[in-house]
Formats: sequence, structure tokens, C-alpha cells
Amino acid sequence: MLDVCLLGTGGMMPLPYRWLTSLMMRYNGHSILIDCGEGTQIAMREKGWSPNPIDIICFTHFHADHISGLPGMLLNLGNSDRTEPLLLIGPKGLERVVGNLRVIAPELPFEIRFTEITENEQTFEFDGFRLKAFKVNHSMVCYGYTMEIDRAGRFDKEKAESLSIPIKMWSRLQKGETITDGDITYTPDMVLGDARKGLKVTYCTDTRPTDSLREAAKDTDLLILEGMYGDPEEAEKARQKKHMTMQEAAQIAKESGTKQLWLTHYSPAMNWPDNYKDAVKAIFKDAHISKDGRSIELNFEDDAT
Amino acid sequence: MLDVCLLGTGGMMPLPYRWLTSLMMRYNGHSILIDCGEGTQIAMREKGWSPNPIDIICFTHFHADHISGLPGMLLNLGNSDRTEPLLLIGPKGLERVVGNLRVIAPELPFEIRFTEITENEQTFEFDGFRLKAFKVNHSMVCYGYTMEIDRAGRFDKEKAESLSIPIKMWSRLQKGETITDGDITYTPDMVLGDARKGLKVTYCTDTRPTDSLREAAKDTDLLILEGMYGDPEEAEKARQKKHMTMQEAAQIAKESGTKQLWLTHYSPAMNWPDNYKDAVKAIFKDAHISKDGRSIELNFEDDAT
Repeated sequence: MLDVCLLGTGGMMPLPYRWLTSLMMRYNGHSILIDCGEGTQIAMREKGWSPNPIDIICFTHFHADHISGLPGMLLNLGNSDRTEPLLLIGPKGLERVVGNLRVIAPELPFEIRFTEITENEQTFEFDGFRLKAFKVNHSMVCYGYTMEIDRAGRFDKEKAESLSIPIKMWSRLQKGETITDGDITYTPDMVLGDARKGLKVTYCTDTRPTDSLREAAKDTDLLILEGMYGDPEEAEKARQKKHMTMQEAAQIAKESGTKQLWLTHYSPAMNWPDNYKDAVKAIFKDAHISKDGRSIELNFEDDAT
Repeated sequence: MLDVCLLGTGGMMPLPYRWLTSLMMRYNGHSILIDCGEGTQIAMREKGWSPNPIDIICFTHFHADHISGLPGMLLNLGNSDRTEPLLLIGPKGLERVVGNLRVIAPELPFEIRFTEITENEQTFEFDGFRLKAFKVNHSMVCYGYTMEIDRAGRFDKEKAESLSIPIKMWSRLQKGETITDGDITYTPDMVLGDARKGLKVTYCTDTRPTDSLREAAKDTDLLILEGMYGDPEEAEKARQKKHMTMQEAAQIAKESGTKQLWLTHYSPAMNWPDNYKDAVKAIFKDAHISKDGRSIELNFEDDAT
């Protein structure tokens, strides 16, 4: 239903055995990419996910490891015969930065639209899902993102009957349509129970722990955070360079009520992220030291209850 | 002596099993890179060659697959504690293109110098070697390059003695130094025989066969050419897209007097370049369908004769 893949798990520079961190999500015919460093198009091909349906690329910030793969990705999309517009979302300056990078990808068979984030927290609504950007604390302006999918309430036959809603309208109302028939307007809530729990994925790299991140992480189904450093001796370095340690990420997960934590964005100097598995799990047991290509299909909770 | 490595062999886009075409050469403490597409820094690391000593990066042209990896490579060089200047050589517009790409790599601990090629053929002299750029015929301005290393004549004791060159000067003169002693100037040719055969490597992708390429390929020790297409049915496509077929490249090798041909820059649609091995070898038997990381150490010919 909602497919999520962490295409790469590296920070700073791509390595022969570790692509740069990038998240791809597929939902309802749309594909969304968050960050696109050097090699992301190769990681995507390695995973076997098509670039063609990518509608939206979000950027956390403009450090090269998060955007250097964009020109190649745009050409790749062009070569896949994409003609529909592509939306780019990112910090202020996005259009200028992308304009510069497009010096080597000037001609594309599709339109690029830009949305620059101007607030500390900003919500973008799409077809059945929304993306929320939240500002974090890095060495340059940087945002995390949540992906949220709402789930309508269950169809309530008794309610529909008690309100005398014509049966022929039930299906359309249930699908979310509002129907006007003469003087009467029928709305979906007339046939539906209370909204049910939807899905939420929270993604954030390149930051110190912040309240905005703790808030965005609340009750998320999947929390994806950077674990740039694992060695406790590097805690001070993490503070200086405005990154998080694995332990700090696990602490956020523990307080968030999330179902699972995926760590990513490892320092290129960290050869064996797994070395810190036990230390991380001691803080939050459903933590995963992700490897490139880690993916999951998230579904709505069983609604039999 | 002269180490040559074809870091990648792909054209157009990087693939999980094929890096983009890029040539690295190491000589006399210098490293030279020709072209730097997306992933070249990873290919270099995979090969185990250090980016740090790279003095010169040459660009054939500004299609993304030949330059998209530059921002990451520059940051990589910066992270390797390079502080010496880096020279970039390429077609007119180089400084503008690189300036644009550096929007995501603005701060570097070394200076970048630019040399834009203004002639159809241009020679650049360095410490013991020279690079020659020659214009070819692609869909945008594009150059091939030759790397040439001269070899001085053998030390000629009889000549030195007959000219009464003081013995204490022999070694310095032999090393190429010119020495002035009072009114007399001693030059290396006074102690050396005729110049001997040096080394020459010719590299060219993204072109139709041209006279400039045939000229540059003459008597080269190693000829590296694109083989974008292999299927004879794609000959017309090669003409239209201003590329070469493997057979056309082999024909140039045959006429050049080169010792060996390495083919590279395969179309991403070509899954098995080896399929065309026999057809290519029928034209020029010392042709190699290169794979990523193919390398060789070239040495001066045995001078015992």
C-alpha cells in the first residue's frame, strides 16, 4: 500500500558499498523521493524501482550529498519518457540551486515546478496524502519531512439510513465525494464513522535533536533518522558538526511512540554500523541499523475491530 | 611508470554494473583525470586509486555523463586534505559551467584554475609530460586528448668527451638541465643521443570518426575510443547521434599503428558488449572490450637495442 525504501544509507560521500541516503516512497500511483545525492539513480535501478512515476522530489538541504545526483536523475526521468510535471520541494533558494545544477541538464521533456519552504513548519496536500516539512538544526537550513496518509471512518449503514441518505449515493459518499441534489448537500461524514488511524512516516537526517523533530516523530509508524556517529566518544563531534549519534536518535524513537526506527546516514569513517546495534537496541528495541535498499510495505491496521 | 586506468566504461547514464567512462593516469607523482561523471569518485575508490594527487581534470565536453560527478569529486579532494591548486581543462565555457555546479561545493581548501581550450588543437605542457586536446565532431563542442611523455636520447659518453664537457656536469645535463659556467652554456643535447620513443595514450569518446582523431591516434601506445554501439543495424543511429560504432573505432585503430585499442562508453542499452568482440577483432586484433577498472602500466621500450 505505502511502499518505503531507503535507497542508500551513507552520509557525506558515496562509497563502493554504501549509496548516499535517500528515501523513496510509492503510494497510490505516485512516487516521492526525499534527497538525491550522487549515485541515487543507480541505487534506484539496483532496487528495481522505476524513476518514471516520481512526481515529487523533496530536499532536506543543499549539502552536496543530498542533491548532487539531481542532474542525472532529471536526465534519467527524461529518458524514461516522462512528460508530466515534476514538483521539487526544498528550502529557500531551491530554484536558484537547481537552476545552477541544470547547466548540465538544460533540456528536459517535462516541466519542473518549485515549492520553496518559507515557514518553520509547512504542509503540502496531495492526492490522498500530505507531506509536512519541519525545520531542524544543522549547519545550514535543513528540514525533515513526514508523509501522512489519512484513513476515513468505516461506512456506517445505520447512520446513513437514519439520515435517509439515498442508497445510490452511498458508494460515492463513502469514497469522499460531496453530492448536491437540488437543495440538499450530502457530505461523506453523513455515511462514515470517526476517522481511523492512517499511516505516518517521519524522515530526518542532518540535525541535532530538536523539539520540532520530537513533535514530528510522535506516533509515527516508521521513524527514519540519521545515526551519523555510533561511538560515544564522537558525541562531541556530533554536537559540533550538527549531527546526531545513533544513541540520540534511539532516544527520540523511545519517546516518540513510533513502531520502529531505521537508522541511516552513517559517517564514511564508520565501517561497521552494526557494531552499535546492541547499544542502540538497549535504548529502543525496535531499532534497525539499516542497509542500502531496506524496504517495507506499510498497511492500514486491521479494521476488523 | 605511466599507470592508466579506465575507471568506468558506460555512456549516458551510470548503471549498477557499469560506471560512467572516465580515464585516470598516474605519472611522475601527478594524477590526471579525463572526465568525471556521476559515480566516478566511487569507481576510483573501488579501484583503490587515491584522488588526493589529482592535479589536472580534463573535460571532453559538458554532457552530464562526463561532468556530473565533479562537485562530489571536488569535495572528495577537499576531504583528502588537498591544498595544492587543481587545474581544470575543457572547452570554452568551462569556468561558467563549473561555477554553476559549485553551488553545492562552494568552499574548498584548494584553488581551482581554469584553462579553456580555444583552438581546434591545443597543447599543454607539464612537468615531464604534455596533454594535447583535439576537436572532434559531436552534438556539442567536444575534444579528445592525448597524453605524451618524451624520452630523451641515451647518454653519449663519446660525444660528451669529444666536446670536452666537464664530467661533474654530465649527470645534471643528462637530467635535462642547462648549465652556464662563465661564458659557456652547456645544454643537454651535448651529452645525449637522438631522442628515443616516448609514450603516448590517446583518449576519445563522443564523436564521429574525424581526421583530427585519426591524426591523434597515430602511433599511440594505447588508443581508447568509444564503442557506443555494436550492432551493425545501429550504424545510422550512431551517425545521427554523433557517436561511433565499435567497428568504426576498430577501423581507426587499424589505420593508426596503435599497439592496442580499448573500447568504452557503451550505450546503457548494450547489456553484453562482449557480443561484438569477434566482429571488432576481425578488424583490429588487439582490440579489447574494456570492463570497468581495466588498467595497465606502460613503460618505455626496452632500450637494450
